[in-house]
Amino acid sequence: MGKTVGKTVGKTSGEIAAGIEVIAGGVTAPAGFRAGGAYAGIKTYGPEPRLDVGLLVSERSCTVAGVYTRNAVVGEPLRLTRERVAAGSAQVVVVNSGNANTATGPQGASDAICMASLAAAALGLDERAVLVASTGVIGRLLPMDRIAAGIAAVTTSTDGGDDFARAILTTDTRSKQVAVRVVAGGRPYVVGGAAKGSGMIHPDMATMFGFLTTDAPVERDWLQATLRRVCDRSFNMIDVDMDTSTSDMVLLFANGAGGGDPITEGHAAAEPLAAALEVVAVTLARELARDGEGARTLIEVVVSGGASLAEARLAARTISSSPLVKTMVTGRDPNWGRVLMAAGRSGAAIDAQAASVWIGEHCPFLRGAPADIEPAVIAAAMDTDEVCIRIDLAVGEATATAWGCDLTEQYVRINADYTT
Amino acid sequence: MGKTVGKTVGKTSGEIAAGIEVIAGGVTAPAGFRAGGAYAGIKTYGPEPRLDVGLLVSERSCTVAGVYTRNAVVGEPLRLTRERVAAGSAQVVVVNSGNANTATGPQGASDAICMASLAAAALGLDERAVLVASTGVIGRLLPMDRIAAGIAAVTTSTDGGDDFARAILTTDTRSKQVAVRVVAGGRPYVVGGAAKGSGMIHPDMATMFGFLTTDAPVERDWLQATLRRVCDRSFNMIDVDMDTSTSDMVLLFANGAGGGDPITEGHAAAEPLAAALEVVAVTLARELARDGEGARTLIEVVVSGGASLAEARLAARTISSSPLVKTMVTGRDPNWGRVLMAAGRSGAAIDAQAASVWIGEHCPFLRGAPADIEPAVIAAAMDTDEVCIRIDLAVGEATATAWGCDLTEQYVRINADYTT
Repeated sequence: MGKTVGKTVGKTSGEIAAGIEVIAGGVTAPAGFRAGGAYAGIKTYGPEPRLDVGLLVSERSCTVAGVYTRNAVVGEPLRLTRERVAAGSAQVVVVNSGNANTATGPQGASDAICMASLAAAALGLDERAVLVASTGVIGRLLPMDRIAAGIAAVTTSTDGGDDFARAILTTDTRSKQVAVRVVAGGRPYVVGGAAKGSGMIHPDMATMFGFLTTDAPVERDWLQATLRRVCDRSFNMIDVDMDTSTSDMVLLFANGAGGGDPITEGHAAAEPLAAALEVVAVTLARELARDGEGARTLIEVVVSGGASLAEARLAARTISSSPLVKTMVTGRDPNWGRVLMAAGRSGAAIDAQAASVWIGEHCPFLRGAPADIEPAVIAAAMDTDEVCIRIDLAVGEATATAWGCDLTEQYVRINADYTT
Repeated sequence: MGKTVGKTVGKTSGEIAAGIEVIAGGVTAPAGFRAGGAYAGIKTYGPEPRLDVGLLVSERSCTVAGVYTRNAVVGEPLRLTRERVAAGSAQVVVVNSGNANTATGPQGASDAICMASLAAAALGLDERAVLVASTGVIGRLLPMDRIAAGIAAVTTSTDGGDDFARAILTTDTRSKQVAVRVVAGGRPYVVGGAAKGSGMIHPDMATMFGFLTTDAPVERDWLQATLRRVCDRSFNMIDVDMDTSTSDMVLLFANGAGGGDPITEGHAAAEPLAAALEVVAVTLARELARDGEGARTLIEVVVSGGASLAEARLAARTISSSPLVKTMVTGRDPNWGRVLMAAGRSGAAIDAQAASVWIGEHCPFLRGAPADIEPAVIAAAMDTDEVCIRIDLAVGEATATAWGCDLTEQYVRINADYTT
């Protein structure tokens, strides 16, 4: 499933897999969701005032699932959200960008609870139904007066997905959202999503958020297991720094507004719905990689011949995050030895005497020996906004796909001048 | 020992630790070693013809020890050298820069043996006494005619250490060598060394070589164990990509020309000699970090409060190699949240509620809470060519030091335009 999806989600509309059709919109495309955003003066860096407080609300209580950063240091909002998701249901997520509320001590923990209460009050809901997510600079207390004003200023609507998608951004250059319609178990359901990445390697920004919504009715344990599996093939396969920032999270809300029996393992709708979730997640993940800080090129890395799925993933992620592979793409330099090196240092088993490397359609290293291809030919084939790198590790049958982006001088400029 | 050494080796002459004195020279400073270099047209990139073939020769057979890359893909010269070092003695190392002889298949394996034979013939020695090291681009066959001409052109002498140190360089901007005199067990011995790094993150270059020499007489197992321990505190503590390139190696030759009984565990000379080796290795390692590609600033990371030595090292290396910590130093941006984030994602245990972070002498995060220090004050303190970052993980007693360098736009320019 993953590989096909990876190759097809370039399309932005129309049917992209059996029974799955891309439609307009994002988190508010499924029935029963409203969203919106406002500017509250929290995201003070950057060129102009931009939305920095967002609300996503379901009309009814949702089954909810979450996947979180593995960083040992986690933000206060994440701590609160993780606890509430574990309770099994939720109805709202309130988000701010510009300040991660991380490394802020007991005051930060109180501020996260306060954000939830303010959102609950504004919406007339129980504050325990509200999840919280904050992204931005670490180590500064939230300006709670501005947070309060921002929450009060948000108007939610069924076409407010755009504003929500913009309100969660930090240094991202564009918003990322997608929605698909899927026929699952004979019924049409919609899955929507919005994400922000801000840059491929930006963990201090509490970098990555993904918010997914669906009007399908879903049993809780299946929802959580499916979200984990989908994330392992999408958000967790983009650049290695990303899934370990202090506040990364992916939340999935299923409100059941589309009707039908609760979907669980073995239900006729389970597989199609999981496929639709993967399309949404992979589409958003690729867009995060493409919009990496300073990036000009999406890098897709396909590993085959791995000893195990875990090793294939490890090799794919090591290659896609290697500074030398990234700069090789930056310079359209067909220096394929770097791909071999990155695979070799990844920890995955590789038979260097039998391995092969492809850049685009060209194979400069075939079964353990350099092939006679003019570097200029490969360089010319790299002159595109998506470069595909493949490697056969030649030790097993496992495959995996990862995504990254090129490393440019602009990346250095952005990150050398961020807080000051 | 490691921490003290790290803080004192800035000095380039005079006594730097009890009984250890920095003296002029490098690998030929110890008695009984000769070296030299020649230009053979292998290192064709770069501004002008530069030495690219080097020979280091001991007048008598040496006890020899080696430490190698952990990359699953290794160069053909490394494969040969590892086998010969395991046999226990050697007398010569022949080195070329400009071509790593890696991913070159069976032809590459033959070429490595041929290089050893050519050097042995030129010196009138048994070819099994010759070790081989190649560094440069991966995936191209060695130009053996040029290698042969280069080896024939080298003249070795007791003051040829400078030429040898230059002949092993790739994109390094300057050669790295050091020598110390140590009084050990009542006798004076000399330890010398040369190293090349080419850039902090340059594993495709088969990046890192360290060649150490001493005239002390040393028992073989102790020599190997000591070299491993010294490397773990020096070369293995510079930027994380480095120890995993395809051809990295550190070789240590002990020829016994200084006289005395073989030194082993418990010998009165063992500790002072190990300390001298560590001074040489840490000095070279710091110089490699300082000369990282495009680097303007040496970053020293000191971790304390680690749960174990392994975790303290992991945290130190993760911080020193983090692109965000590097760019924070590039921009003199006191964005200390990045240090906390990198420690958190390293895998080392950290108590974020009790941890502290220092940049230079300033402590912007003390025992789990942000401190009230004007960022401009910290930024001003960072305006130096060595920035020291410290973090207390607050979970145990272990400490470790790692070295890295800032990430600049120049790094991207160098690596985006290397083979082409």
